[in-house]
Amino acid sequence: MKRIITYGTFDCFHIGHLRLLEKAASLGDSLYVGVSTDQFNALKDKKAMIPFQDRLEIVSSIKHVHTVFPEKDWDQKIDDIKKYDIDMFVIGDDWAGHFDEMLKEYCEVRYLPRTNGISSTAIRKKISAC
Amino acid sequence: MKRIITYGTFDCFHIGHLRLLEKAASLGDSLYVGVSTDQFNALKDKKAMIPFQDRLEIVSSIKHVHTVFPEKDWDQKIDDIKKYDIDMFVIGDDWAGHFDEMLKEYCEVRYLPRTNGISSTAIRKKISAC
Repeated sequence: MKRIITYGTFDCFHIGHLRLLEKAASLGDSLYVGVSTDQFNALKDKKAMIPFQDRLEIVSSIKHVHTVFPEKDWDQKIDDIKKYDIDMFVIGDDWAGHFDEMLKEYCEVRYLPRTNGISSTAIRKKISAC
Repeated sequence: MKRIITYGTFDCFHIGHLRLLEKAASLGDSLYVGVSTDQFNALKDKKAMIPFQDRLEIVSSIKHVHTVFPEKDWDQKIDDIKKYDIDMFVIGDDWAGHFDEMLKEYCEVRYLPRTNGISSTAIRKKISAC
């Protein structure tokens, strides 16, 4: 039973999010997803268009996702990995290398290629231009 | 084995779409969803922000959804209802009464309340205002 974990905001749920969740799920048997709260995003100077509870419910409704939980701060990852008995942490390769030092003693760490040209920012720009 | 069918564009997948799919699925055992193609939307003078294939894949990945298929024209519903042996057609109550005459001899027809204040149009406006 191999358990995978990933994190994200998942604003305006799009095909890039789905591809990442599919790929992450394919690396193990069950996928755990931390969804960033609005308060955590504010700490990062980010503002999601879609409120946290809606983003959480949408990610939770995806077939490849086993469990969702709120991501409230930068430092909870080690606790989450222990709590859910995680084998592998995965995240988009825009974070390549970033989590090696913090997490490699607790589980495998892998960076996944993002879908070309797809991001919440790109979708926001496309919509705003209409 | 009660089979439910619904249709929609499901542009910029949001909590209103999810609520409708959840409610539709709760009325039976398996949910069939027709997703409007870009060509069909053009006939209706509508333009989705998200391309058909992405919208189809996202709806297909929702836990409550059994089968997805393209909706290519207004007249295919009776064929779909026969093909999938459907017991109930459901759609948002912005269409209240609209499909009674066409479909009531083939299956039950039910109109579901939409989520207050949530629509693809409202989300587009919110994003454009940022």
